[in-house]
Amino acid sequence: MTNEFFPDLRTVRLDEPGGAVVILDQTRLPGEETYVELRTPEQIWEAIRELKVRGAPAIGVTAAYGIYVCCRRAGGSCFDDLCETFDRTAAYLASSRPTAVNLSAALERMRNCLLAHRDEPAAGIWDRLRDEAEAIRREDATACRQIGEYGLSLLEPGAGILTHCNAGHLATSEYGTALAPLYLGQERGYGFRVYADETRPLLQGARLTSYELMRAGIDVTLICDNMASLVMSEGRVQAVLVGCDRIAANGDAANKIGTSGVAVLARHYGIPFYVLGPTSTIDADCPTGASIPIEQRDPAEVTEAHYAQRMAPRNVKVYNPAFDVTPCDLITAIVTERGIARPPFDDALRAWSLPGRAGR
Amino acid sequence: MTNEFFPDLRTVRLDEPGGAVVILDQTRLPGEETYVELRTPEQIWEAIRELKVRGAPAIGVTAAYGIYVCCRRAGGSCFDDLCETFDRTAAYLASSRPTAVNLSAALERMRNCLLAHRDEPAAGIWDRLRDEAEAIRREDATACRQIGEYGLSLLEPGAGILTHCNAGHLATSEYGTALAPLYLGQERGYGFRVYADETRPLLQGARLTSYELMRAGIDVTLICDNMASLVMSEGRVQAVLVGCDRIAANGDAANKIGTSGVAVLARHYGIPFYVLGPTSTIDADCPTGASIPIEQRDPAEVTEAHYAQRMAPRNVKVYNPAFDVTPCDLITAIVTERGIARPPFDDALRAWSLPGRAGR
Repeated sequence: MTNEFFPDLRTVRLDEPGGAVVILDQTRLPGEETYVELRTPEQIWEAIRELKVRGAPAIGVTAAYGIYVCCRRAGGSCFDDLCETFDRTAAYLASSRPTAVNLSAALERMRNCLLAHRDEPAAGIWDRLRDEAEAIRREDATACRQIGEYGLSLLEPGAGILTHCNAGHLATSEYGTALAPLYLGQERGYGFRVYADETRPLLQGARLTSYELMRAGIDVTLICDNMASLVMSEGRVQAVLVGCDRIAANGDAANKIGTSGVAVLARHYGIPFYVLGPTSTIDADCPTGASIPIEQRDPAEVTEAHYAQRMAPRNVKVYNPAFDVTPCDLITAIVTERGIARPPFDDALRAWSLPGRAGR
Repeated sequence: MTNEFFPDLRTVRLDEPGGAVVILDQTRLPGEETYVELRTPEQIWEAIRELKVRGAPAIGVTAAYGIYVCCRRAGGSCFDDLCETFDRTAAYLASSRPTAVNLSAALERMRNCLLAHRDEPAAGIWDRLRDEAEAIRREDATACRQIGEYGLSLLEPGAGILTHCNAGHLATSEYGTALAPLYLGQERGYGFRVYADETRPLLQGARLTSYELMRAGIDVTLICDNMASLVMSEGRVQAVLVGCDRIAANGDAANKIGTSGVAVLARHYGIPFYVLGPTSTIDADCPTGASIPIEQRDPAEVTEAHYAQRMAPRNVKVYNPAFDVTPCDLITAIVTERGIARPPFDDALRAWSLPGRAGR
């Protein structure tokens, strides 16, 4: 099972000897498809922090591969040493970006794997950790495909779809979350017309979403974020699909900055607003969105990143939150690999976040 | 009466011998304060089209000065020749940008002046046309100051204000429309905290609004357009102030793309949404916003303008409307130099657009 549109485009993978995490450097897209090998904690931290690899599921997979690669490189003469290295490295990697829960969830899962095999010889532990990381990647791909199936069931052929940021192939192991229904629909001749918000400040919609949808032959039109209201008012949009970085227990969903505004617009114009993500994105420990930490990023991303010339006055004050929280009452449905939840979301999310569930 | 904050910054003026329109080239801001002399219809058309001078009132003043300068240069042996030159030049200048009604309204007013003085000698006609253009500029400045007074009466000291695009000193002869209350408030110690939407694609908020507010010592924070929802949800905004390019008879207001989205957000978060503009912006011939032409601009503004590198895939489809229409039912009040109108707006707008009114 592989996204047929991207046989050659791997967001994140482990190189064969297991000595490096290999990522597609997304800061170079759409101009260049450049792969980067990450071998040290610092390289992995910087790649996540600088958004060379981004998207909550892809960050989780990168962290799982990364902790394996780093611990194996560090070696250690006894299990306690290994544990110490693991915990120090995991805390460091988790500090790279605070909002996506998949990052810490993947590291936690790797730690549970380590502890479960503490009595095995070192070689066996390496195999277990590598297998666990590969399982996280494989389950993410499977979850994304299933999210696509559930999501597609909500859409009509020929529909206009608006999406924000990038929750596609490039944000996950395969298929994406919000974009997965579009790929399945493309395989099946649905003929969607997609509007991609460019998504300031880092333009993931312009650089990544329009790139991967065009590459798959899907009809996509790029708009500035502030054009969504007009596009909706003109009747061009029948559904909004967005990904998520963390879903609180009540259904409040953190996602790329601007998502809550799109949700308000969708409500105003009577358009269904769907949040799509794997159950690994649910954080049962966050009762509401108020508990989700919101990353603040460098003002230069707003005032000069990507620009030939500085586009705002020197020393201008800038507010640059990377995410916002969409309140659950603005969400029509939450779509995971386990199914489609409608409000109130609490019961479904609780059931999906219980131990023993698939996909986590 | 002059905006004390900008004794040396003239958006548009006539040079002393009357041979050129002199504009501040706003495409060079905030990096450079460069003035450009415009002498031919082509230069004036291009300056308006390329947004070297922009903002509905400033465009109107530029067109008034411009038609005077161009007709005087062209000369002509009889009144019929002059009329023919006038009409050809006016039609050409009016084609530079379709949405702001001030452009065609100023040209119409200049034409009425010309016809009213058809029996005078040429030298007298030049004086009349120049005086009329200067009157348009002077009345705009007076209107802006009065808009500021009415607007300020709606605001509390210390309020958080969100604005979109640039409807300030740089968009008018003096003071601005949406920003006029902020300058008067600054003179009187109101201590406003302003959030300026950067306003993609051409970043008038980042380049112009934050520039002129900082220059006046006003507390301004730059945000990306898609951050307005978060900023409002955090309780940072007590009022939204925006300008307008054309107001239909029912109160529907065309303004920079994204304004309607800000209005939807303001309604959702319970924040008053004020549209500020001179009565010259009212178009009684447009019954609703549906009759207002919306300018479509070059896709390159979205995909590469201002960028060091191309930020979207080659050949990506782009939708780039320059304006949208905010429906009257999302507008809390319309503020002109004649007063404050509350919904339903029809009667006030009709009265304000009648012949004989001040400011037009």
